[in-house]
Formats: sequence, structure tokens, C-alpha cells
Amino acid sequence: MSSAMASVQLNGTSTGTPAAAAPFLTDAMKLINSVKTFIFDCDGVIWKGDKLIDGVPETLDMLHAMGKRLVFVTNNSTKSRKQYAKKFDSLGLNVAEEEIFPSSFAAAAYLKSVNFPSNKKVYVVGEGGIQLELTQAGISHIGGPEDGDKKIELAPGQIMDHDHHVGAVVVGFDRFFNYYKLQYATLCLRENPGCLFIATNCDAITYLTYAQEWAGGGAMVGALKATTNKEPVVVGKPSTFLMDYLASEFQINKSEICMVGDRLDTDILFGQNGSCRTLLVLSGVTSLDALQSPENSIQPDAYINQLSDLLSAKKSASA
Amino acid sequence: MSSAMASVQLNGTSTGTPAAAAPFLTDAMKLINSVKTFIFDCDGVIWKGDKLIDGVPETLDMLHAMGKRLVFVTNNSTKSRKQYAKKFDSLGLNVAEEEIFPSSFAAAAYLKSVNFPSNKKVYVVGEGGIQLELTQAGISHIGGPEDGDKKIELAPGQIMDHDHHVGAVVVGFDRFFNYYKLQYATLCLRENPGCLFIATNCDAITYLTYAQEWAGGGAMVGALKATTNKEPVVVGKPSTFLMDYLASEFQINKSEICMVGDRLDTDILFGQNGSCRTLLVLSGVTSLDALQSPENSIQPDAYINQLSDLLSAKKSASA
Repeated sequence: MSSAMASVQLNGTSTGTPAAAAPFLTDAMKLINSVKTFIFDCDGVIWKGDKLIDGVPETLDMLHAMGKRLVFVTNNSTKSRKQYAKKFDSLGLNVAEEEIFPSSFAAAAYLKSVNFPSNKKVYVVGEGGIQLELTQAGISHIGGPEDGDKKIELAPGQIMDHDHHVGAVVVGFDRFFNYYKLQYATLCLRENPGCLFIATNCDAITYLTYAQEWAGGGAMVGALKATTNKEPVVVGKPSTFLMDYLASEFQINKSEICMVGDRLDTDILFGQNGSCRTLLVLSGVTSLDALQSPENSIQPDAYINQLSDLLSAKKSASA
Repeated sequence: MSSAMASVQLNGTSTGTPAAAAPFLTDAMKLINSVKTFIFDCDGVIWKGDKLIDGVPETLDMLHAMGKRLVFVTNNSTKSRKQYAKKFDSLGLNVAEEEIFPSSFAAAAYLKSVNFPSNKKVYVVGEGGIQLELTQAGISHIGGPEDGDKKIELAPGQIMDHDHHVGAVVVGFDRFFNYYKLQYATLCLRENPGCLFIATNCDAITYLTYAQEWAGGGAMVGALKATTNKEPVVVGKPSTFLMDYLASEFQINKSEICMVGDRLDTDILFGQNGSCRTLLVLSGVTSLDALQSPENSIQPDAYINQLSDLLSAKKSASA
């Protein structure tokens, strides 16, 4: 980052940037006082991989002390709510399972919201989190990791059998995606009448490690879109399902929510699609250059460098 | 098929079907006399899996004897021209390698047509046919089947290295598609400047066995479209690349070509995109019901039950 850009950030002026570009958040107290709920993306906001981002515990404590409701969402479907609660705990953060909403949970919540029949089951393309959430919701499921090593040895006239009681295919990021799962899910979607096609997310990239960009859950969804000519219901960000669910579950007014995230096309769009306030942090995948690029059409209400900037704002206000 | 429909076929009348629906070909001799070249799709026209369709050898012999040029195309990229020539031979058909154009060959021909630099290489997502054609064309390549068993064992901070000399990713049907190949191809397409994205086809389904529909090469392409936000150059049917190539290679006039195939959205569209005559055979994946469905917008010039209908037409004309 150039020093000129650094000074733009620090001073909160927008000299040299397009008029529509989001400003640096100069009056954090005003934002904090104007909302009742903060929804945080996790990776790039709270932690990076397995490392807590500096100042996060103190910032969350401050917001809690000010009576704010804190909610955590992530498009990562490889873990369940319970597994995420353990991760928060291992990082020294006191967050309850009920405050965490991964897209694995969103998939199960969506199925419950449409009264998924109890005599039907789900075929899972994805890792363990989706299965755990479906089990928790009392929904039968097959597939998932146990199909990760399956291969199709072809013989003339061969047919792959599939379960005609599969009423939904849930697709999440899957490092063990293979042709067996692709064909099984395709058969369910093409041949089982009314079979639902549910995507936890359509992200192009994900951060398995922060050292580089990794192919994301959009790949598995894209493969199945191509074989079925169907469009999935997306339950993760930036679709509005989870925001509507949160607003209903906690009886909160969307205009009193601030969505905080590090990605423009998922987090900030999620907030905007839900008519919430939006705050970008630069501690994750979006750089100031990317935010201010003429090619970027998604502008948050404001941006900060990292979550703990809110903490220093409080200190300044109290000084 | 209902007897009413059978009678529509046999009589060549279109009673009860929409005005725009393609008629049964009643005057095969007129068609044969009006064109100089026949382009045949293979699977569903010449053979089904490993079984030759009745009457094909005699029909091809007749067309040859009448001085017609016969050319064979297939979107299947798992075999090379040479491998297909062996398959024709094993079925008792005398077809030269140079008359066969699988999409594996089309991918190599496309790279040659754009003067793919000799210091660059191709990353292959697909089976053996693509590799053999690239080698035949003198183009370096990596990936393909040898990456079929590779897995990514994650460690903190891990990076997947990739070859910065990869100047094109060629994607074909791949029964051994996995996350390793997905990530490798994604890195090449996202990070190597100007890297070409070439799809042998975007077929939703393929016929590994004729006992059912199997997820097709569109899946692997769809996965990479999702991770790169790029659109591929498609070299197989129904794109016009191969038709233009054939017209140029053989110095043939497209209006004197008849494209014969069993699939509306690949074969017939390929012929129509190339301004050729089009003839559908019902010996493959398209049923008369599907052809005449109000939902079908692709109508060939005419249809026959199977290729040997041309033979009986000749016999009737000579009688």
C-alpha cells in the first residue's frame, strides 16, 4: 500500500478516489450507537485461519458491554455450529453455539423452513459440517465424506443405482469431490421428482490456507448446475435467506443491524441485500486498492482496517 | 411410442404436430443428391457404446459409392483420432484417421490455429485422448490422468505451486476429476497472464453406458467457470470452430454439408450454427416425443429412424 493511500485511510478523506467510494469510518461511536446488532463474518474479521486477529476479544467485549447483540456468520460449511463454538472457545472467545450461523446450519434451517418431509432424505456433497447439522435438525442424510473414495468401474450396460427417497441435494465445499458424487447427485436432481438443489454458497474462492486463494464451493455447485441445467437455492451469503432467518429468529429490525465483513461480493452484498448497514474490514481478502478500484461496484457504508479500530474509537470518545 | 406417432413417422405427415416440427425424411435421394459431404456424429448414429447400429456399414458404403465425402465428429474427448480409427476398424468400418474429428483433436487444432507458443504448455483436465492429440500436434502438456490420484493434505500456510509456463487449460470429460486438478487449473487460469481456457464440450450428459445418462463434460467446465469467473472457448459441438475447420480443411461449401446426429442441442445445433443441412436420427438419445415436444425449439430439416433409412430410400428409388 502506498503512503498516500495510508494517509487516505488514516485521515478519512477521499482525495483522489471516486466520489462513490466508501469512506474510512471516522465516527465509530455514531455507527455503534445507531445499531443494536452486529453480524460478523468470521474468517478475515475474527480470525485468519487458526490465528485470532489482534484486538478482537477486547472489541467484542466492549460491544457486549454496550448491550449489542453479536451474531457470527460464515459461508464455510465444513464445520457445524458446535464445531465452530469449540473453535471460538479455543481462541479464547466466549461465543455460544446459538450465536453462530455457518452455511451448514443454514442448509438445515432452510429444509426445516420448507417442512422437508420426514420420509425423505438428503444427499450431501460436502464435508462433515453439513451432516452434523442435518442430524441435529433430525433430517436423514446419505453421501458426504463416506463417498469420497468411491470410484466407478465401468462395465457394459452398467447403471448407478440411486435412492429415490432423496428429496434434496445439499452442496457445500468439498475437498473430496469426485465423479461418483457428481453422478449420484445428478441422478437425484434429474430423476427424483421435486428434488431440491441447495447450495451452501457459490464462492469462487475460499481460504483453506491464507497463503493463497483456493478453489471454493462454487465449483461443486457449478458442476451440478451444468449437469442438471438447474439453479440452486443458495442459503449462504449473499443470499437473503440467512438474514431473513436471523431477523425473524431474534426479532430484530434489519435497519438496526450492521454487517461486518472482509469480502465485498459475499459479506457486504449480504448486508446490502438485507438493507442493513455495512462495514468492511481490510484485515481479510479485500485490499484498499480493490475497494477503491473503478472495477468494484460494491461499496460498503464505510471501512476500517480491522475490527479493533472500533475499540480505539470508543477510547477516543471516552478520552 | 404410440401407434399414432409411429404412423406419423412412416407416412411422413405432420398431422397433430406443430407446424414447425421437423418432418420425417420422405425423399432421401433428394437430400443425398443435394449435398457433397455428410458429417456424422458417432455415438447414437454409427454405434451405441460398443455395438454397431444395424445397417450402418451398407449405408456408408452406398454413400461412398455415390462419391460423397464422409466425416465423423464426436464431442467425446477421452479418445484420440488414432484410438477412434481402431474402434471403427474393430466394428468392421473402413474409416481413416484423417476422417475422424473428436473434440480432443479439436482442442489441439484450436491451439495450433492460434499459434500457441512453443515455450508454453497445456494443463489437461481430462482423460487420455487430449494428451495424445496434444503430443501428436507437438504441444507440451502436463496434468491429465497422472493427477487423478493426487490429494491435497493441508498444513498451515500451505501453497500449491503451479507451473507459470502453462498457457492454456484444456478441459474435457474426466471420470477422475478431483480437487487437486480443480485447484491446479484454477491457479493457471487465475494467475498465469493470458492463460487460455478451452472446453472440449459443455455437454450436461454423456453416455458412458447406454443404460442411463451420466454426468457429462459440462461438469468439469462448470466447476472451473465458477472458480475463475471466466468463459471458455468451446471447440466441440455446437460451437462453430470444428465446422469452420472442416470447411477450410476440405475446401467444402457449408451449404453442401449435411450434419447427421442424434442430439438436438449438440449435433443439430452444430449443423445449424454452421448453416448446413441437418438430419436427426432417432437411434440415439432423442425420442420422437422429445423432438415434437412443444418445449423443443431445435428442429432439424428432417428426421429418420436410423441411418439405414437412407439405404432403403436408395433401394426404393432404384426399384
